[in-house]
Amino acid sequence: MKKITRQEIPRKAVYRLSVYLRCLQRLNTNGIRTVSSEALAKAAGVKSTQLRKDLTYFGQFGTRGLGYDVEQLAKMISDLLGTNSLQPVVLVGVGNLGLALLSYRGFEQEGFEIIAAFDVDLNRKRNKNVAQPIYPMEKLPEVLEKSKRGVKMAIITVPPSEAQEVANTLIGLGITGILNFAPIVLDVPEDVTVNNVNLAIELENLSYFIQH
Amino acid sequence: MKKITRQEIPRKAVYRLSVYLRCLQRLNTNGIRTVSSEALAKAAGVKSTQLRKDLTYFGQFGTRGLGYDVEQLAKMISDLLGTNSLQPVVLVGVGNLGLALLSYRGFEQEGFEIIAAFDVDLNRKRNKNVAQPIYPMEKLPEVLEKSKRGVKMAIITVPPSEAQEVANTLIGLGITGILNFAPIVLDVPEDVTVNNVNLAIELENLSYFIQH
Repeated sequence: MKKITRQEIPRKAVYRLSVYLRCLQRLNTNGIRTVSSEALAKAAGVKSTQLRKDLTYFGQFGTRGLGYDVEQLAKMISDLLGTNSLQPVVLVGVGNLGLALLSYRGFEQEGFEIIAAFDVDLNRKRNKNVAQPIYPMEKLPEVLEKSKRGVKMAIITVPPSEAQEVANTLIGLGITGILNFAPIVLDVPEDVTVNNVNLAIELENLSYFIQH
Repeated sequence: MKKITRQEIPRKAVYRLSVYLRCLQRLNTNGIRTVSSEALAKAAGVKSTQLRKDLTYFGQFGTRGLGYDVEQLAKMISDLLGTNSLQPVVLVGVGNLGLALLSYRGFEQEGFEIIAAFDVDLNRKRNKNVAQPIYPMEKLPEVLEKSKRGVKMAIITVPPSEAQEVANTLIGLGITGILNFAPIVLDVPEDVTVNNVNLAIELENLSYFIQH
């Protein structure tokens, strides 16, 4: 596999690789060893020309007439995405949504482990217990520096008014990937990637389309 | 305002309108009455040419040199998105993520009310209580038909193996907007809109970018 640098694969293609990976994992679970580009594209909800184009990031691949080796392709994508080993993540903001994410098992199944959570108010009433330790914000440098696992990713679930300051702190401590649930646009240096998730905006978007 | 039909505004522009709306609401809360397109674009994280283009969906608007009237523009966007009144939503799949969403107050703040939840297993052990009633799946037709509020939107948080069947049932009962958290591509008729949210895929995407 040729060396792939960040600039070569656009963000949308990386999303599609994640979707292909899930389809391949499902095929593998069902005992299917090879898959045609048409069948894999259909399962992923993309055109087969799109799929073939996305897979050219891996160089020449697949055997004409036989399709792709399910396990091999899954491993190649997973290697590229860096999800073959469990990745440590910290979460900042243990309100309602933060708590929900701390107890969401889906992350771990997919290779991400939230190792610690942080909040300004440790005494806030919380309606459930979570497995991860919750620390005061001041402990953030200590926990990140002491972690031998090189934490690079963080989830921000603080109110919008606090999010930029929290992002600045995290970036200062070496975080380069942020999953941001606060409904604001974070201002970050070029080498930091922010993915925004806003559940209310997703519903609002649907709301428009069901009316028109 | 001229009549706007569904085809006229692309999905991405509708997302941006949601972001503008949030910025305007924040300005309004801070007592700011007018805003220039440059300032609003900066707050929303888009180019001002993009903002001006998006606002042309509302026809001629804004006063040269004075900028936009914050309250008026917010109302116009909110009318278009249909979020001026509380919209009823049902949720199917009360596992870990479903439970989290049921207790997430963010939806209601933004104009969406989850009125009922459904699950195949009512006796499943759940680690917290929620305000909404949880019904067996069989009750779905009855609850939707009896609701005088015309439920058009649903949230799917069932396992991927069940998601398509659940979507079919919902669509058969008049649902036309689905927020899908199951990591599969749903096959739906053209008049139904599906927005997909996959938190693990968001993290996986970050995982790629922090390495390359």
